[in-house]
Amino acid sequence: MNVDTPRDGLQLRSIVKDSGELELSLARVATPAPAADEVVLRVEATPINPSDIGLLFGAADLTTLAGSGSGERTVATARIPDAAMKAMAGRLGQSMPVGNEGAGTVIAAGSGAAAQALLGKTVAVLGGAMYSQFRTVKVELCLPLPAGTSAAEGASCFVNPLTALGMTETMRREGHKALVHTAAASNLGQMLNRICRADGIGLVNIVRKPEQEALLREQGARHVVSSASPRFIDELTEALVATGATLAFDAIGGGKLAGQILGAMEAALNRSAKEYSRYGSTTHKQVYLYGGLDTRPTEFVRNFGMAWGMGGWLLFPFLQKAGAETAARLKQRVAAELTTTFKSHYAGEISLFEALQADTVAAYGARATGAKFLVNPNKGVA
Amino acid sequence: MNVDTPRDGLQLRSIVKDSGELELSLARVATPAPAADEVVLRVEATPINPSDIGLLFGAADLTTLAGSGSGERTVATARIPDAAMKAMAGRLGQSMPVGNEGAGTVIAAGSGAAAQALLGKTVAVLGGAMYSQFRTVKVELCLPLPAGTSAAEGASCFVNPLTALGMTETMRREGHKALVHTAAASNLGQMLNRICRADGIGLVNIVRKPEQEALLREQGARHVVSSASPRFIDELTEALVATGATLAFDAIGGGKLAGQILGAMEAALNRSAKEYSRYGSTTHKQVYLYGGLDTRPTEFVRNFGMAWGMGGWLLFPFLQKAGAETAARLKQRVAAELTTTFKSHYAGEISLFEALQADTVAAYGARATGAKFLVNPNKGVA
Repeated sequence: MNVDTPRDGLQLRSIVKDSGELELSLARVATPAPAADEVVLRVEATPINPSDIGLLFGAADLTTLAGSGSGERTVATARIPDAAMKAMAGRLGQSMPVGNEGAGTVIAAGSGAAAQALLGKTVAVLGGAMYSQFRTVKVELCLPLPAGTSAAEGASCFVNPLTALGMTETMRREGHKALVHTAAASNLGQMLNRICRADGIGLVNIVRKPEQEALLREQGARHVVSSASPRFIDELTEALVATGATLAFDAIGGGKLAGQILGAMEAALNRSAKEYSRYGSTTHKQVYLYGGLDTRPTEFVRNFGMAWGMGGWLLFPFLQKAGAETAARLKQRVAAELTTTFKSHYAGEISLFEALQADTVAAYGARATGAKFLVNPNKGVA
Repeated sequence: MNVDTPRDGLQLRSIVKDSGELELSLARVATPAPAADEVVLRVEATPINPSDIGLLFGAADLTTLAGSGSGERTVATARIPDAAMKAMAGRLGQSMPVGNEGAGTVIAAGSGAAAQALLGKTVAVLGGAMYSQFRTVKVELCLPLPAGTSAAEGASCFVNPLTALGMTETMRREGHKALVHTAAASNLGQMLNRICRADGIGLVNIVRKPEQEALLREQGARHVVSSASPRFIDELTEALVATGATLAFDAIGGGKLAGQILGAMEAALNRSAKEYSRYGSTTHKQVYLYGGLDTRPTEFVRNFGMAWGMGGWLLFPFLQKAGAETAARLKQRVAAELTTTFKSHYAGEISLFEALQADTVAAYGARATGAKFLVNPNKGVA
């Protein structure tokens, strides 16, 4: 079953041009023959995560999206507003491959024993450039999937599962006892809800729509609050009193939500305050912004005392800080619970060609909850 | 020279009433006889710091200020906007004494040796309720001033000096190599400039007016940037490149400044970036908000990658975290350099009666740089 290494394959590319144009296209790239400790993967399933969308589109205005060509010549373009070009300086003129993670079949392997052992296996890889037909990667980046697991089931093995586990790990490490999560009906949010239920962790789920609230309640979530409710702040405060959550992970980023969470945490803490302190509660309240679904500026009223923090949170720096032992423990849990706790849902499976068609781009570019797509780079390829 | 403990004395009080009225008045309070480990201080100099102003006025609208009465019956009132009353719930109806720190003469002492040793001495005290004629306090709260130091010279021994030293300590503890400071021409800012010059620490001073820039440059500051300059962001970025500062202490709080500092830090770091990362620089950038001179909401554009933090910073939690040894070391430095590094400047000395007169309240309530007042609670008292 060791087929020869395919000579080349298609790879999705994103480039920002001097002219202020973003262009997505397909390149035909050579497949490197595997070294002793490498394997060649035929990529069969790779998700379009919010973290991929950032690299795909940069600061482009998707309302200006236009498509042209077909097959290997399919191209999508969009304008980048002049004001946003400064932030693109670091990637200007570079044709960049995209796709953090994915899964597929090992179709060729280097001479090493570890590489040979993977031949024919379905593996998940966190290797970048996964929107490619073929990828030659180091064995150490591969996670062999349990027998009977499909590439589609294993496609989102890393980013969402490890991010969700990273949140509860961070909670413990920083001395909090419960969590708040926004955009809570996302794939990631549903995973976090399952983890918190299994581990007995209090979780306050913040959603934006009634159907998202219903979905999470069906999945056993106890505390679900909708930011669209006219009583949002009061309902959030009650949930914070009930759980004692003083740590939040916010995927929204823009607008007032992060500050509102800190304010409600302070109000919840002050319910049990014995004495007035003009500096507010002495309990540290923290919100980590790990996404930016709302691209507007972040704004907050400082009504939560002085013991507070806001900051960025990213998976890879977290894993580095947590150390190899913790990272290995988390990955083992993901592999063991891949089709239960860490199950993902997709709006559809698309080919590389479809990924460049304007209507499809508009669909996954919307970053709406429930609209996550899976790319199969070998779908529809001759 | 051990006079009897005065039976009573005047004390400034602040109260927020149910009706939404803030009232400042004078109360006549008994002076407790000192226990073995206590002394009685005749307070002769106590500054009105921004941290005192918060407790004095709460959320009152100072444009509604009105005065009445005279002498011991002097009263100042102001309206608290309805929307701000929620934040006042914790202090409603409580007549609160004010004044974090001050200095004066020990006029009576308890039987303990440590207390007796202070008799007749000029000491500085961080004890609260310092806008009082007399204060009975524990010996451990007293810092004996070097011989020849006046109460006025020692009045601001704690809050500003320890805050300024706390900033450079925090910088070292959190692994930064240089600092940014806003409202940098304040008494605190001038102290910080002297500390950084003495200790060889890079300091970027941000001011709001040309005359503040001139004042700091006269005092040897190398990097002074005015937020009123049309090239503010560029000038700030240059100063950040020159110093390598990745930590800021911001007294302003409201508006866009804190976010602009993070953005400029990121731009400075990216000058030397070798490779594009859509998550931005991996160097952690931090802004601590330790004041709120601008009471508007805080707003920021997230153009500084993911390795960033914003948070509250307060002197007392810092000292607790740093430990007794560090706190003692910092206090020793303050006492040794009280009339040099830690020298304060005041716009004037006022009595307790004057502190309640509407025109004086308006002057110190403006929180303008260079308008700090010193209260002498025993001035003009029969």
